[in-house]
Amino acid sequence: MKILIINGVNMNMLGLREPEKYGEMTLEQLEDDLKNFASELGITLDTYQSNIEGEIVEKIHLCKENYDGIVLNAGAYTHTSVAIRDAICAVKAKVVEVHMTNIHAREEFRHTSLIAPVCIGQISGFGVDSYKLGIRGLVNYIGK
Amino acid sequence: MKILIINGVNMNMLGLREPEKYGEMTLEQLEDDLKNFASELGITLDTYQSNIEGEIVEKIHLCKENYDGIVLNAGAYTHTSVAIRDAICAVKAKVVEVHMTNIHAREEFRHTSLIAPVCIGQISGFGVDSYKLGIRGLVNYIGK
Amino acid sequence: MKILIINGVNMNMLGLREPEKYGEMTLEQLEDDLKNFASELGITLDTYQSNIEGEIVEKIHLCKENYDGIVLNAGAYTHTSVAIRDAICAVKAKVVEVHMTNIHAREEFRHTSLIAPVCIGQISGFGVDSYKLGIRGLVNYIGK
Amino acid sequence: MKILIINGVNMNMLGLREPEKYGEMTLEQLEDDLKNFASELGITLDTYQSNIEGEIVEKIHLCKENYDGIVLNAGAYTHTSVAIRDAICAVKAKVVEVHMTNIHAREEFRHTSLIAPVCIGQISGFGVDSYKLGIRGLVNYIGK
Amino acid sequence: MKILIINGVNMNMLGLREPEKYGEMTLEQLEDDLKNFASELGITLDTYQSNIEGEIVEKIHLCKENYDGIVLNAGAYTHTSVAIRDAICAVKAKVVEVHMTNIHAREEFRHTSLIAPVCIGQISGFGVDSYKLGIRGLVNYIGK
Amino acid sequence: MKILIINGVNMNMLGLREPEKYGEMTLEQLEDDLKNFASELGITLDTYQSNIEGEIVEKIHLCKENYDGIVLNAGAYTHTSVAIRDAICAVKAKVVEVHMTNIHAREEFRHTSLIAPVCIGQISGFGVDSYKLGIRGLVNYIGK
Amino acid sequence: MKILIINGVNMNMLGLREPEKYGEMTLEQLEDDLKNFASELGITLDTYQSNIEGEIVEKIHLCKENYDGIVLNAGAYTHTSVAIRDAICAVKAKVVEVHMTNIHAREEFRHTSLIAPVCIGQISGFGVDSYKLGIRGLVNYIGK
Amino acid sequence: MKILIINGVNMNMLGLREPEKYGEMTLEQLEDDLKNFASELGITLDTYQSNIEGEIVEKIHLCKENYDGIVLNAGAYTHTSVAIRDAICAVKAKVVEVHMTNIHAREEFRHTSLIAPVCIGQISGFGVDSYKLGIRGLVNYIGK
Amino acid sequence: MKILIINGVNMNMLGLREPEKYGEMTLEQLEDDLKNFASELGITLDTYQSNIEGEIVEKIHLCKENYDGIVLNAGAYTHTSVAIRDAICAVKAKVVEVHMTNIHAREEFRHTSLIAPVCIGQISGFGVDSYKLGIRGLVNYIGK
Amino acid sequence: MKILIINGVNMNMLGLREPEKYGEMTLEQLEDDLKNFASELGITLDTYQSNIEGEIVEKIHLCKENYDGIVLNAGAYTHTSVAIRDAICAVKAKVVEVHMTNIHAREEFRHTSLIAPVCIGQISGFGVDSYKLGIRGLVNYIGK
Amino acid sequence: MKILIINGVNMNMLGLREPEKYGEMTLEQLEDDLKNFASELGITLDTYQSNIEGEIVEKIHLCKENYDGIVLNAGAYTHTSVAIRDAICAVKAKVVEVHMTNIHAREEFRHTSLIAPVCIGQISGFGVDSYKLGIRGLVNYIGK
Amino acid sequence: MKILIINGVNMNMLGLREPEKYGEMTLEQLEDDLKNFASELGITLDTYQSNIEGEIVEKIHLCKENYDGIVLNAGAYTHTSVAIRDAICAVKAKVVEVHMTNIHAREEFRHTSLIAPVCIGQISGFGVDSYKLGIRGLVNYIGK
Repeated sequence: MKILIINGVNMNMLGLREPEKYGEMTLEQLEDDLKNFASELGITLDTYQSNIEGEIVEKIHLCKENYDGIVLNAGAYTHTSVAIRDAICAVKAKVVEVHMTNIHAREEFRHTSLIAPVCIGQISGFGVDSYKLGIRGLVNYIGK
Repeated sequence: MKILIINGVNMNMLGLREPEKYGEMTLEQLEDDLKNFASELGITLDTYQSNIEGEIVEKIHLCKENYDGIVLNAGAYTHTSVAIRDAICAVKAKVVEVHMTNIHAREEFRHTSLIAPVCIGQISGFGVDSYKLGIRGLVNYIGK
Repeated sequence: MKILIINGVNMNMLGLREPEKYGEMTLEQLEDDLKNFASELGITLDTYQSNIEGEIVEKIHLCKENYDGIVLNAGAYTHTSVAIRDAICAVKAKVVEVHMTNIHAREEFRHTSLIAPVCIGQISGFGVDSYKLGIRGLVNYIGK
Repeated sequence: MKILIINGVNMNMLGLREPEKYGEMTLEQLEDDLKNFASELGITLDTYQSNIEGEIVEKIHLCKENYDGIVLNAGAYTHTSVAIRDAICAVKAKVVEVHMTNIHAREEFRHTSLIAPVCIGQISGFGVDSYKLGIRGLVNYIGK
Repeated sequence: MKILIINGVNMNMLGLREPEKYGEMTLEQLEDDLKNFASELGITLDTYQSNIEGEIVEKIHLCKENYDGIVLNAGAYTHTSVAIRDAICAVKAKVVEVHMTNIHAREEFRHTSLIAPVCIGQISGFGVDSYKLGIRGLVNYIGK
Repeated sequence: MKILIINGVNMNMLGLREPEKYGEMTLEQLEDDLKNFASELGITLDTYQSNIEGEIVEKIHLCKENYDGIVLNAGAYTHTSVAIRDAICAVKAKVVEVHMTNIHAREEFRHTSLIAPVCIGQISGFGVDSYKLGIRGLVNYIGK
Repeated sequence: MKILIINGVNMNMLGLREPEKYGEMTLEQLEDDLKNFASELGITLDTYQSNIEGEIVEKIHLCKENYDGIVLNAGAYTHTSVAIRDAICAVKAKVVEVHMTNIHAREEFRHTSLIAPVCIGQISGFGVDSYKLGIRGLVNYIGK
Repeated sequence: MKILIINGVNMNMLGLREPEKYGEMTLEQLEDDLKNFASELGITLDTYQSNIEGEIVEKIHLCKENYDGIVLNAGAYTHTSVAIRDAICAVKAKVVEVHMTNIHAREEFRHTSLIAPVCIGQISGFGVDSYKLGIRGLVNYIGK
Repeated sequence: MKILIINGVNMNMLGLREPEKYGEMTLEQLEDDLKNFASELGITLDTYQSNIEGEIVEKIHLCKENYDGIVLNAGAYTHTSVAIRDAICAVKAKVVEVHMTNIHAREEFRHTSLIAPVCIGQISGFGVDSYKLGIRGLVNYIGK
Repeated sequence: MKILIINGVNMNMLGLREPEKYGEMTLEQLEDDLKNFASELGITLDTYQSNIEGEIVEKIHLCKENYDGIVLNAGAYTHTSVAIRDAICAVKAKVVEVHMTNIHAREEFRHTSLIAPVCIGQISGFGVDSYKLGIRGLVNYIGK
Repeated sequence: MKILIINGVNMNMLGLREPEKYGEMTLEQLEDDLKNFASELGITLDTYQSNIEGEIVEKIHLCKENYDGIVLNAGAYTHTSVAIRDAICAVKAKVVEVHMTNIHAREEFRHTSLIAPVCIGQISGFGVDSYKLGIRGLVNYIGK
Repeated sequence: MKILIINGVNMNMLGLREPEKYGEMTLEQLEDDLKNFASELGITLDTYQSNIEGEIVEKIHLCKENYDGIVLNAGAYTHTSVAIRDAICAVKAKVVEVHMTNIHAREEFRHTSLIAPVCIGQISGFGVDSYKLGIRGLVNYIGK
């Protein structure tokens, strides 16, 4: 089983970005951490990050042939991108949406995800752990 | 570490209730399954179910002294109960909100949770697995 | 054929409650009247009343095995209870929603029923007669 | 006692119109059926159908002198016609609003009736039976 | 100078319709009264009434060649008819909108006129006098 | 019979203020013109103008004992002043609301008057003539 | 193949109606032009115009047996008529909605079509050409 | 004179619940304090608390025969319970709504009370003193 | 302790203004009554009334140095004045908002107070008694 | 005459993307098909596709000097991109908006186009044919 | 060149009013500071402050003849005063709107200015510097 | 001190884009002009323009280490980009938002900025001068 972690806009600033909210782990450290975690689960995990909406769309397109599923933290695009939603539908990708912070406890406009309705599910609020829970959820879902 | 699973309204019908949507596992089987899962994680897990909003409120009150945290699937009350929200605040309970279905993919009125803003986080869409991911997320959160 | 009348919140005050709006017949008298009416139609009719949302939910659960259909006047819960709506779906109950007053002629918030979308139909405005029309409608529907 | 059935826009297509939703009975058959039903109840029943809002308005005007009450299925005009609402008020007609389908279970814009607030009551969801329940409700109401 | 009074839907019931709200003068009497009033002002006045939106539209079309202006009480169509609005624009008719009752003091949905924005002005609340004020206003406007 | 014209905020700029919209007649000229007009009708007419909401309120208070009715052009306060509305109710003043421009054809926020619901009626769109029509409407209303 | 052009309210004024917006071609000329155009495409084309909503409804009913499809410009009824929408569904008519002007560039209330959701598609903004594009689109669609 | 204090959902946690917001007095202490206060005023005061909406409804029903009035702090149900509102109307209870915190200064959804429109009045923001002011207000009102 | 009563717009008409709603006591009588009441409580009480929003603002400014707190009935400005809200914040005045009528039972636009969120609390519905309860509430609050 | 087809986000997946909705023709095939079609019409046609909003903006900028007009299917950006709208205005490009599916029959958020108000017109619902109709419409428009 | 600074409601409390938000400079000091600043720019600057909406309106009226432009901080009236907006239009005043705080970062109701749409521009968030930037912007604008 | 000017989408068309609205100065000329202006102020100024949202995000990320502050004209992204907002927060950048046109006087959707709430302030309406005022405002702010 092979899955892909996609981190969206501003996630390259992890560790540097509001550490009181997002923690001090950098994106690179996060990706390494998740790869180790995947190894333990006996699956292959690749990572990708982009700040450009269209590039995330294209990465999802490519997933069709290359991955069994995606764990996606689209960042701010979660709330504004119909394009990413459509990309998921276009390739019928199996996607789990994750957020480090509890988006339901933040500004009103962060409560709505344009992407979640076409995902398997959504996990938010557990920091780095959101990714790991997402991976587990995805792996179990695919394994059914 | 000791945690409590609270299942809200209509969850006693699990297995009988729209099995194509919620699966065929009964509430009793679910609760047993989660207890086994908890054992593996080395924690103690109790379960509770009620269809009455005020009883769920009171159970949350009691948690203050008895549990380290709660995994809560309030069912329909998720979308209508300010009372449960206030109960969580009243005892500063550490709560993870879970849903078996992806509430963000259902009717508009199910997209908003009155409870999530006062929880650690929210997990939805993974069937029985939502509970297990919730337990893991809670245990890690408490363990920090 | 066996059907159940469920009266929801505040309906125990019938006869005492705003008689200019709801008439002077008490709940007990109403229930007797409906039972006689049912006899004439050659069906069995039981009655139930509760002011507690969760108890109404549970009664609906039990109907699955015991009744062919339900005539439901949920009272104020009509406009606020997702839980009752979900209970009906959970057991795929055949329900006719009735109201003594014309809810479409009252306050704005009474125009919307959360329950009607999962019922066979809705009847409002005919006083005690709403129940009888509801019983007829239900009996014919089941008899099809 | 003499009552009038008014069928509004598109109801002339009954039997031809989406039979899976509205059944296979034609308007003519429905009207005959209702007349027989009225005979059994010992009342006189006339029928009228028009696709033109203004003609329905005028028919309601005429009812003042000729009928004790009206059973009205205004079809689509239910949701858009202030004119029909005003016509009912203008002659203080006793009107029961009926719908074959459960309008509360269809598109959002069909949940609101501009006419119901000035009627005795509303019945929806029972197919042809909605008319018969409406006639009964009306007859009882007038008989009070 | 030649002007036309157009009375819309339900206005044929004048005198019969809610006399406590609209007075006891019939449409025929109103029209005679207005013709006398017009004579005094030295202008020619014709009258027209229809309950059918499309006929009102067509009458407005014909006005282009035959009248200097229109005093229009569209009744309920005031609040629902884009068609009448477009008819006025189509022939660039000079129209004064009048209402016998004060529409701003009635139900919310009567506060908005779809027609007023394409009229010279709007007069409401003066009973029969609304027409006379409307005629005066129109005559002065045309005379400029 | 004695009536008062109240001109509200910015009306002192008449003639100077956007003459393409409000005409070239100054407030003083308007007031003189209306006094002449009143003489012809055989009534007494006083005039008042203020830019201060509270002063308009107080003038309305004083009207109770001194005038039979008021023609009020509150200007911008039409759309924002609950205070003026309450003042009219407080003394049960008979008020006709007038506007020189057709407020229903201007910005959305000018379509709603907070004052009109407590007035006899509203006249808008006839320039200086709006006042004269308002005086006539008021005089006839009082004379009934 | 035989298709019908239905022109709705105010379209009889074409050429006379705001020519700067709708051009100088009259309805008669438009209909002739479209018939010629149809001949070139080798299909039969009839035309119909009415200002009355209910008549348009009835014409659509009749289409069921007589035409392969409809090109419909409902004019103002586009934005207010649930009745026409229902007529299309009632006979499962194949309809292309057309508008001469770009309705998406006009007043807010013209952006929403009640009819488009039950049509094959919508074409707006090309003047007379909208009809021709609509005919082509319809012919191709039917031909599939 | 005999009055009843009803404390709604979560109020049993008083003293334990967010003491920085609600103070350190427990519910028992509050009730004792209010009873002493009532003695000083020369009236009889009973107290009741429930977390269950339906039980509060039933307590209000019983008040009809037993109390002259009620001081009600419904807690979170203030903002969600049509049932409690209807219970008050059903027995025409004289009720004063009180809140310890200033609900108008908290989350948007706490600004609206479904219950206040059927009460004598509302008092919020004075901590324990809100109850005492409510008792005084109620006593004076009844004494009129 | 020295407190100030500020009465806002239209309150000078007390006793004259809708006595069925506001009672027959005049403002002068009210102020005297409140001064006596204050004496009994052993505090000093001044009174002020203005119909002008800006003057109320200025009075609040002056309170900073002269009073321990304010009981404010802003009348209609309650619902429209950001200025008064800002004045309270500007001098960090301790203010209790009072209303004689139950504003939550009146028109929708009176349910929202722009001022209450920056006050200690709000009291509405007790007639003259609202002021006395407000004074008590304020005195206790200051005394803490 | 030289025109450009711009395909926006996710359109590169054509043929692969939900073929039941968008057909089985790939983007390359579509572009070839349209080029052939253009040849028949005697015009030159270039094609462009990008998933990146900013690149579409830049392509539109370049069109100013190189093309007589654009046929634009912006995909999901239709509903979210003010940037593309502004790009069209910036170079006063002549643009026809096309959609393969009938966007007015899909999710609510797809009914509104931010781009259409600055286009010549909009065509939706005809599959591949939408482009051809768009080309014809554009060519005729330019040729005027 | 001669310009006027108008400070609106509550601005007289500058220095005293929430100094952590508005700084410690008093209005008098601010006005002096701005006059010095104006001298350096070689222009004449007058200042005015009022808490009364109507007085600000009148000051703007007078500006027509006396000033080349206005820098206006209307304070709370920014969000509620149509009157000030109309005053600016009435005399076609050249106005720059300024705010010391960033109104777009404060409460929702402060995000909308009724005045900005009729101004040259708006500057907010720079404390005292907002005025100076406003003066510069105005001077440059007038100088064009 | 070193600051950066970021111009967003469509700003590369400056001079070419609607010159009646944005003036005839090209982006290059603007950037040169601003650099000269910066020299006069004794600060260093760099410029950047991109049409791609994600690139603007990345440029803001880089600013953390390289600039003291940013003057940002995000163009259309002002109203749609949560991503840019988050980027500013992520690096706690000191940003002044500027617009050449008065966005508050344009279409409704341009009145709201998603970015302004996380900026120092906003300046709009002064053409090229908006940038210069923004630079001054930023420099003063940093210099504090």
